[in-house]
Amino acid sequence: MSLEHQSLDEMPKPTSTPIPVDLSKYSKRVLLKTILDRGDGGLGLIDQRVVVGGWVKSSRELRKDHPPATQPPVGGDAKESTGGKDVKCVEVFQSRIPFLRTIIKVFGGNTAHTKEKLDSILPKSAAPSVSNLLISDGSCVLSLQVVVDSSLAPPSQIMPTGTCILAEGVLQKASLQGKYAIELKAEKLLHIGIVDQDNYPLSKRGLPLARLRDCAHFRPRTTTVASVMKVRNGLNQASHSFFQNHGFIHVEVPIITATNTEGFSDIFQLSIVEKSKKVEELKRSDSNKEALAAAVQDLHKTNLLAAELEARSKLKSKSRSTIENIKKKDGYFTNQAFLTTSGSLHLESCASALGNVYAFGPRFQADKSESKKLLAEKWMIETEIAFSELEDAMNCAEDFLKFVSNWVSENCYENLYFLSKRVDKTIPDRLNLLASTVFEKITYTTAVEVLSKVTDKTFEAKIQWGVALTEEHESYLVDEFYKKPIIVYDHPKELKPFNVRLNDDGKTVAAFDLIIPKATLIRGSQKEERLNHLSKRIKELGLSKDQYEWYLDLRKQGTVKHSGFNVMFDVMVLFATGLNDVRDAVPFPRHHGKIHN
Amino acid sequence: MSLEHQSLDEMPKPTSTPIPVDLSKYSKRVLLKTILDRGDGGLGLIDQRVVVGGWVKSSRELRKDHPPATQPPVGGDAKESTGGKDVKCVEVFQSRIPFLRTIIKVFGGNTAHTKEKLDSILPKSAAPSVSNLLISDGSCVLSLQVVVDSSLAPPSQIMPTGTCILAEGVLQKASLQGKYAIELKAEKLLHIGIVDQDNYPLSKRGLPLARLRDCAHFRPRTTTVASVMKVRNGLNQASHSFFQNHGFIHVEVPIITATNTEGFSDIFQLSIVEKSKKVEELKRSDSNKEALAAAVQDLHKTNLLAAELEARSKLKSKSRSTIENIKKKDGYFTNQAFLTTSGSLHLESCASALGNVYAFGPRFQADKSESKKLLAEKWMIETEIAFSELEDAMNCAEDFLKFVSNWVSENCYENLYFLSKRVDKTIPDRLNLLASTVFEKITYTTAVEVLSKVTDKTFEAKIQWGVALTEEHESYLVDEFYKKPIIVYDHPKELKPFNVRLNDDGKTVAAFDLIIPKATLIRGSQKEERLNHLSKRIKELGLSKDQYEWYLDLRKQGTVKHSGFNVMFDVMVLFATGLNDVRDAVPFPRHHGKIHN
Repeated sequence: MSLEHQSLDEMPKPTSTPIPVDLSKYSKRVLLKTILDRGDGGLGLIDQRVVVGGWVKSSRELRKDHPPATQPPVGGDAKESTGGKDVKCVEVFQSRIPFLRTIIKVFGGNTAHTKEKLDSILPKSAAPSVSNLLISDGSCVLSLQVVVDSSLAPPSQIMPTGTCILAEGVLQKASLQGKYAIELKAEKLLHIGIVDQDNYPLSKRGLPLARLRDCAHFRPRTTTVASVMKVRNGLNQASHSFFQNHGFIHVEVPIITATNTEGFSDIFQLSIVEKSKKVEELKRSDSNKEALAAAVQDLHKTNLLAAELEARSKLKSKSRSTIENIKKKDGYFTNQAFLTTSGSLHLESCASALGNVYAFGPRFQADKSESKKLLAEKWMIETEIAFSELEDAMNCAEDFLKFVSNWVSENCYENLYFLSKRVDKTIPDRLNLLASTVFEKITYTTAVEVLSKVTDKTFEAKIQWGVALTEEHESYLVDEFYKKPIIVYDHPKELKPFNVRLNDDGKTVAAFDLIIPKATLIRGSQKEERLNHLSKRIKELGLSKDQYEWYLDLRKQGTVKHSGFNVMFDVMVLFATGLNDVRDAVPFPRHHGKIHN
Repeated sequence: MSLEHQSLDEMPKPTSTPIPVDLSKYSKRVLLKTILDRGDGGLGLIDQRVVVGGWVKSSRELRKDHPPATQPPVGGDAKESTGGKDVKCVEVFQSRIPFLRTIIKVFGGNTAHTKEKLDSILPKSAAPSVSNLLISDGSCVLSLQVVVDSSLAPPSQIMPTGTCILAEGVLQKASLQGKYAIELKAEKLLHIGIVDQDNYPLSKRGLPLARLRDCAHFRPRTTTVASVMKVRNGLNQASHSFFQNHGFIHVEVPIITATNTEGFSDIFQLSIVEKSKKVEELKRSDSNKEALAAAVQDLHKTNLLAAELEARSKLKSKSRSTIENIKKKDGYFTNQAFLTTSGSLHLESCASALGNVYAFGPRFQADKSESKKLLAEKWMIETEIAFSELEDAMNCAEDFLKFVSNWVSENCYENLYFLSKRVDKTIPDRLNLLASTVFEKITYTTAVEVLSKVTDKTFEAKIQWGVALTEEHESYLVDEFYKKPIIVYDHPKELKPFNVRLNDDGKTVAAFDLIIPKATLIRGSQKEERLNHLSKRIKELGLSKDQYEWYLDLRKQGTVKHSGFNVMFDVMVLFATGLNDVRDAVPFPRHHGKIHN
């Protein structure tokens, strides 16, 4: 037959096989984001066979032996899902089960008894049923409904909140009308990670953030904390983008340092714990004979092996064995070693060669503050710019904040939207304020003058030139007086670190604080490039000259005017997410007290 | 006059003002990169007035009172630069001056005497002359020639290597034929940061890398170290890009931990140094009365201020004063605190909620190794992938390396080219090998078999199943046998951390090492997701069960199969730059001995 005589009906039809949905590249499953974050809510993927994985957020069981009570099955899809039989919804709120167990325990009854009582209350899982699981895999805010027939797995095993499921099945139109357009009809359960409900903190729904802190290792499973972590990731990306776009070189400044950078904080000092000591400790405590035996055997084996190797060949330094080190017991560093409080001194050294540099890393201080904005371990972005003065650093800091605010608004929309519903509805306004307003720049002296004239309000701490502004003062200036972010510069020298550049008045230094609603987010300064001024200040403050010798070298050898600033990254996360306590903005916060995870 | 009658000569000419070159945004100067990294070598910018800054790399002085010896002035530009007079090149190699001074010192002579002798040898700077300074600002490999008339500054002040110069002037065609097309004729020197040549280590040219380690705070001023730092920055950027492109969330895992992650290393423990203790120490040492007085006064003032504030108002926890903390003397954490050796346990917790996560940060170990690839403080990239097995992690690691190798080849071309000339000419080939070759994947058992059959070579350490492969073994496999990067997987369980998944054979675990020429760059594994296996291993190794309680929780509550890997970031820098010692690849390396900077 020639093409000319072929009617349209006879033309070969395009194959009806849908384009397979993308596999997540390094795990054999499809990310829920790929299915749910589409304009059509996933409808275009109906009939596709996929593997999905996630953790149960909530669930309900539908018995097969009763007709549906409220929600009629919808069309052929529903029929398919229930094997053609009518269903009755007997919704079992699994989240109540631990509560019931507790009640029974508290009001007497041994374990066997408890089980009996529970069985009388809880649904008979043996009867054929369908479990509807809402699962989340962290790739997006939304959850996917997975429909699991009781023939595949006992509902009691898969329904508890927090259960991990890896399921293979076919995407179909949602069997019951509701929030979601589609669901997965499971045909195979490839993995089940069960939950011990009695001991799983997230079994209880809607725990407040303060309670979630006690289980930092689980809390990213809540949509709120997951959203915070994604905004945090976005802020990280945006920060790197800003600096790289402007030609700054990222430098990994050291964490272990011999220099106590600012002289304002309590600090952490380092000692060394050797493997052999661990064995000795175990011996002394004698708490676990088995463990001790194993450890001794382990050490013994390693020593034997080392000796053998050493004898057999010229075992040189390049060997990976750690034996020699186990034998030595002296200190690791010959001078005192601390955890760095700030990377700025080291960054200055790099700026005095590479021009513009920045660092992103952890900084430490051991002050036992109860502040909601301060941790022992905090992440900071620090930057130094060669051939620059205070004004340049202030401009850069302002541009940085504007860029980052815009970036997260555009790229973390889904999570910010969720957080603005759950945590703080002013998030979009606040980000917009940062992105679009020109910040007010005032001197410290002006700030004091403004505050001194305030008559309609009494501050807890009296305002006085030479004393640091309190949060209350700053909040007044930002929220009530200027009604926008402010930069306060030229502070009294006593309030700022030793290395800030002295102004011509001999009393103030070229430092600035960038203050946004609720927080000081950035502190910056022009550094003292003049050797004589810097040496004098080190002496005045009684700092150890030895520690700063290398730093003074930078002033002796080709000194350059330079300035920079530090961004309190964790506080920036607070600002963008509407949280109040920095312990909720850091994955595993470290503060005074016990380290839990 | 109508347009019709206007001849071409009469047409208004385009303004001859050149488009001004871009200012560096946060410093009032033009980056040298903007001038020199153009196709035309900067010729299109002639006659532009700019401010540039940088450090002198080399210099020579041209006296005005002699005709030029070798290089005649070129055209009108040269005339302009010498004020129309002929010049004679009296090239003074400033780098020899410190050497001369040393000679004079060594062979006797007090300072005054020395100066006299030097003056008799050194050029008379008082005579009118022109200094040609090659300056570099770290923004590119190339330097710019700045021509400074002696009327602007004494040559002896500005010529020493390392001097910092901020100069305003006009770009002009190079006055002498040479490497560069253009130069800056300085009209104003806005800043000079002099150099104390006797004490400036970079006064001596061509110091080997090992010597440069003694002055880590200066060495980024050498083009080699600057290039290494830029490649390092490039690898950082590329790494973030890879993971973000694949939907991984960056997580800042904690540095301070109560968990000694792997049990293989000596570790750092933390104690606290309080501000009040510093004063006590000073008192005891009595070494610096002035410093002591200042410190005591400082503490006294703070205490007074605090008492006053406290009395005056309800000074609550939100105050930023650190007074209360100064008074307390107990520990900061109620349990023992260490520096983390690995972030992978914490990452696993996040992967068990968010899916794919990664971390980039410092990790620590206190082993006194002399290895050229190991430091006390090392930067690592760590990643964990939920719902994945060993094979997924191996594929991801391979793709990661390929991506990163390609990225730096394309984006760090200038610096890699410089390093391939100066350090290792095989850099391009090696990066290309990584980017384009499919890695060989073999089991540990196969590796042992291959090595056992080797007859043309004797290894220092005998090959034996159950013993770790040495660098020599690995090098043989990569360089001589497979001639490509290899991934060795399924290692004996004794050789890997406690949390690697046990294979069905009961002897090996699902771990892998990715080995490239000269180094093991990545170590990865599938983690043990089964509670019973993991608990058993913790007991076998005598690890503290208390420390791992939260970690075991992840297996009790919705456990998931997952795998991941660690990239030794510093070793990756070694590989990409051709360096041999990791101390040259890290800005401020920390190793056994004294901390200098």
